Amino acid sequence: MEVRLKILFTSLCHTDLYFWEAKAQDSVFPRILGHEASGIVESVGEGVTDLAPGDHVLPVFTGECKECAHCKSEESNMCSLLRINTDRGVMINDGKTRFSINGKPIYHFVGTSTFSEYTVVHVGCVAKINPLAPLDKVCVLSCGISTGLGATLNVAKPTKGSSVAIFGLGAVGLGAAEGARLAGASRIIGVDLNPSRFEEAKKFGVTEFLNPKDHKKPVQEVIAEMTDGGVDRSVECTGNVNAMISAFECVHDGWGVAVLVGVPHKDAEFKTHPMNLLNERTLKGTFFGNYKPRSDLPSVVEMYMNKELELEKFITHEVPFLEINKAFELMLKGEGLRCIIRM
Amino acid sequence: MEVRLKILFTSLCHTDLYFWEAKAQDSVFPRILGHEASGIVESVGEGVTDLAPGDHVLPVFTGECKECAHCKSEESNMCSLLRINTDRGVMINDGKTRFSINGKPIYHFVGTSTFSEYTVVHVGCVAKINPLAPLDKVCVLSCGISTGLGATLNVAKPTKGSSVAIFGLGAVGLGAAEGARLAGASRIIGVDLNPSRFEEAKKFGVTEFLNPKDHKKPVQEVIAEMTDGGVDRSVECTGNVNAMISAFECVHDGWGVAVLVGVPHKDAEFKTHPMNLLNERTLKGTFFGNYKPRSDLPSVVEMYMNKELELEKFITHEVPFLEINKAFELMLKGEGLRCIIRM
Ligand SMILES: NC(=O)c1ccc[n+]([C@@H]2O[C@H](COP(=O)([O-])OP(=O)(O)OC[C@H]3O[C@@H](n4cnc5c(N)ncnc54)[C@H](O)[C@@H]3O)[C@@H](O)[C@H]2O)c1
Ligand SMILES: NC(=O)c1ccc[n+]([C@@H]2O[C@H](COP(=O)([O-])OP(=O)(O)OC[C@H]3O[C@@H](n4cnc5c(N)ncnc54)[C@H](O)[C@@H]3O)[C@@H](O)[C@H]2O)c1
Ligand SMILES: [Zn+2]
Ligand SMILES: [Zn+2]
Ligand SMILES: [Zn+2]
Ligand SMILES: [Zn+2]
Repeated sequence: MEVRLKILFTSLCHTDLYFWEAKAQDSVFPRILGHEASGIVESVGEGVTDLAPGDHVLPVFTGECKECAHCKSEESNMCSLLRINTDRGVMINDGKTRFSINGKPIYHFVGTSTFSEYTVVHVGCVAKINPLAPLDKVCVLSCGISTGLGATLNVAKPTKGSSVAIFGLGAVGLGAAEGARLAGASRIIGVDLNPSRFEEAKKFGVTEFLNPKDHKKPVQEVIAEMTDGGVDRSVECTGNVNAMISAFECVHDGWGVAVLVGVPHKDAEFKTHPMNLLNERTLKGTFFGNYKPRSDLPSVVEMYMNKELELEKFITHEVPFLEINKAFELMLKGEGLRCIIRM
Repeated sequence: MEVRLKILFTSLCHTDLYFWEAKAQDSVFPRILGHEASGIVESVGEGVTDLAPGDHVLPVFTGECKECAHCKSEESNMCSLLRINTDRGVMINDGKTRFSINGKPIYHFVGTSTFSEYTVVHVGCVAKINPLAPLDKVCVLSCGISTGLGATLNVAKPTKGSSVAIFGLGAVGLGAAEGARLAGASRIIGVDLNPSRFEEAKKFGVTEFLNPKDHKKPVQEVIAEMTDGGVDRSVECTGNVNAMISAFECVHDGWGVAVLVGVPHKDAEFKTHPMNLLNERTLKGTFFGNYKPRSDLPSVVEMYMNKELELEKFITHEVPFLEINKAFELMLKGEGLRCIIRM
């Protein structure tokens, strides 16, 4: 049930940076990071029937076995077999790695390890896409943009005319803003600590900007004042637990829905007064925007092909594989959105 | 917009006990408690057009003005004008009380103050019901039972065949269990620290019982083991913040929904690791089971009239008004469910 992929393009997502910094958990070492990518099937292993060499694909950090309770549920995309597992550095079939150096194993990362010219992935973690789709563009749909887009469209579900706050204006947050724009939100309030994000965010339909550093009051109170009690929906795309709490507390009582997307540090604690919940707010979280990778991702690629979704504006930099460290530096400095790494 | 009601029956809900103990907030004193009741309209004030003397009614602690954003929203029942306000002891019209003793004001409680033979209530807090409904029974629909029932049917929304955990098997929790039974849940797991609750709970379709004191592990882990990863839905009806956390963490990842109903102490803090949310669990809270009192409560009374809903089993005691302290003692001891107080 394994597939060998030739990776053509990969990009850097903040989740790679977390695990590189080993903030989210104990580190597995040495391992090949990378999970946002596009490529072509090079060969398929035993048992693989729905993929063939030459297929254009996106590898995904969370899989879809199509047989477990999650895959059969309409609500979940957290496949029991293939869901994200950041501790596992081996293939599930035999508990071994497909990478090595001088006979010593090099571990895998979230089942994808796309910072490599070739990688081996479980068939359940591979979405077969339209062969006409340009792989240097749709590669960003393999994680960040789809995650943000789906968090809004599939989980927060704003109605036409509603107000939406987006915390964190990186690629994931701007993917969420795109979702809000597509859903017809009338106000999209972008919140970020980095003021350089605001210029870029205008291209994504963000209508108002808030830098928490510019206010003495907690940002949730500022938002409540701006919106007569709170926004209808919020989507948190920072990974910072204080932003998660603000994103929850800034939604309107009675009907507000907050969706958490950011990957928290391992010792983070979400805290709030239970009365904030009793006042009829809803709090949710999502992986990969609740998209099932094999079933749903091809249609997200079609949104791009139909020009509903613009990906070019997410791609601010491009480097050859040799200069991958530049992509890390850009993200550390908070410059640009996605840096495409040509393999 | 005020109505004078002759209260015929009232019962004691845990929320009265909290405010009597002044645990939930600073106390307003002296005040007339009581909010779960039934009665007859004695007279109506200026502006009241849809109620007339003789109408059979249930007063409700939260109102419905029918004009604000909440009343117009399909999702919320938290009327901006008439939502529960536990600090306000006066009528909203003139900021004065309608009770006094020797010229000194006696304050109102949550707009109802039903521990009184007559009370004055805003018309928006009065549900006109079927005059054939027995007031000594349907009085329990004016708060606790509807709250629990609605928390399950309107907010948790279990599907047929699903598993539901109910935390706290008082009248509110057993109302929630009734909701789970009506929705066709296949497993209803009742959790309570008081083992005497378990015998009673069998009458309400509760299929399994858990006393957290009988286990070394946190109860959410015990439930996860019993249910292959967690229940589909949980409803917390205790007011205890640890039970709220357990109720959240015991739902299945991917699709589980937890609903908080209990009124927390004023310094309570809800804490969880954000990963529990990211794993696609949903956390919500509700007042009065999301029922809009004037629009929805009459149909809950009809559920009783049609014998879909049995109220007799919730009523375990009955006392004349003179012996109201017995009702407090019973609740303090955790004996019985609802004690009807005959006015
Ligand atoms: N749940 C999922 O499936 C999933 C998938 C991909 C990424 N992620 C996570 O989403 C988050 C965003 O990823 P990205 O690639 O867009 O990262 P990014 O670094 O490009 O963007 C994050 C943005 O958040 C801002 N920020 C940080 N702390 C903040 C705070 N307290 N308040 C306001 N803004 C703050 C930063 O300035 C930055 O602009 C990361 O935590 C990443 O790990 C989750
Ligand atoms: N949200 C609303 O609209 C609303 C309306 C009515 C009542 N309430 C609240 O609902 C709660 C229940 O009300 P009730 O009248 O049924 O009270 P009750 O006292 O009859 O029942 C509460 C039950 O919870 C159990 N309990 C307490 N702590 C527990 C714990 N840690 N774990 C498990 N069980 C525990 C008690 O033993 C008791 O059986 C109260 O907090 C009340 O204030 C809320
Ligand atoms: Zn990612
Ligand atoms: Zn699966
Ligand atoms: Zn009550
Ligand atoms: Zn209203």
